[in-house]
Amino acid sequence: MFLRVEHIGLAIANLDEANALFARLFGKAAYKDEVVEREGVTTSFFQIGQEAKIELLGANHEGSPIAKYLDKRGPGIHHLAFEVDDIRAEMARLKAEGFELLADEPKEGADNKLIAFLHPKSTGGILVELCQDKG
Amino acid sequence: MFLRVEHIGLAIANLDEANALFARLFGKAAYKDEVVEREGVTTSFFQIGQEAKIELLGANHEGSPIAKYLDKRGPGIHHLAFEVDDIRAEMARLKAEGFELLADEPKEGADNKLIAFLHPKSTGGILVELCQDKG
Repeated sequence: MFLRVEHIGLAIANLDEANALFARLFGKAAYKDEVVEREGVTTSFFQIGQEAKIELLGANHEGSPIAKYLDKRGPGIHHLAFEVDDIRAEMARLKAEGFELLADEPKEGADNKLIAFLHPKSTGGILVELCQDKG
Repeated sequence: MFLRVEHIGLAIANLDEANALFARLFGKAAYKDEVVEREGVTTSFFQIGQEAKIELLGANHEGSPIAKYLDKRGPGIHHLAFEVDDIRAEMARLKAEGFELLADEPKEGADNKLIAFLHPKSTGGILVELCQDKG
């Protein structure tokens, strides 16, 4: 089951500049930064309201997924993440519904979560992430 | 003050097909459709969790803002909307912070709201909407 919008991921060119920009926009600073080495990404998080975060995504090096995205599309809204109650059950349900998953098993993401992505081809061009706290 | 992520707007090519697709994704149907004639857009809304909605945006005719967006970028995540407590006060604050507003006054949007957009040039490529219930 989809529980809530957990975060919206924004691809940004420079994390320090974007942290300053979005702090001015939201009227408060990011509450944490986190490097996810395996993905070549540095993230920062702003909490807005009770449910959803804004996650800034900066590339750590050329060739990382975010670097490729920025090369192709420029900065912008990169993905939309939903917390689900049971990520494996949701992955199975969505596969049966005809959605294409980027991997058969959830992987470890930022923010202490298991995550899985749906291919934008199967979701009307939207990169959708499922996530569940590892507890 | 930014209160919450109010909705995420997705530009979609065909509203009926997208309503069916996202109903399969979320496991529930859109709870309403709404035409905003002035903007040349038909919207539908899915509630996910307590705070945020997913708003699908379909073009009513060629030349509308969503039609132009789809021609240029294809379907995708179009904008990110935040509920604020006082839209005019936030517009003044953000203008003083150097953000560029698309209009000096809020306008009427879908879902019984006053809305205002920030130019993506001033927000790292993200189309940001402020909204406030008209009450």
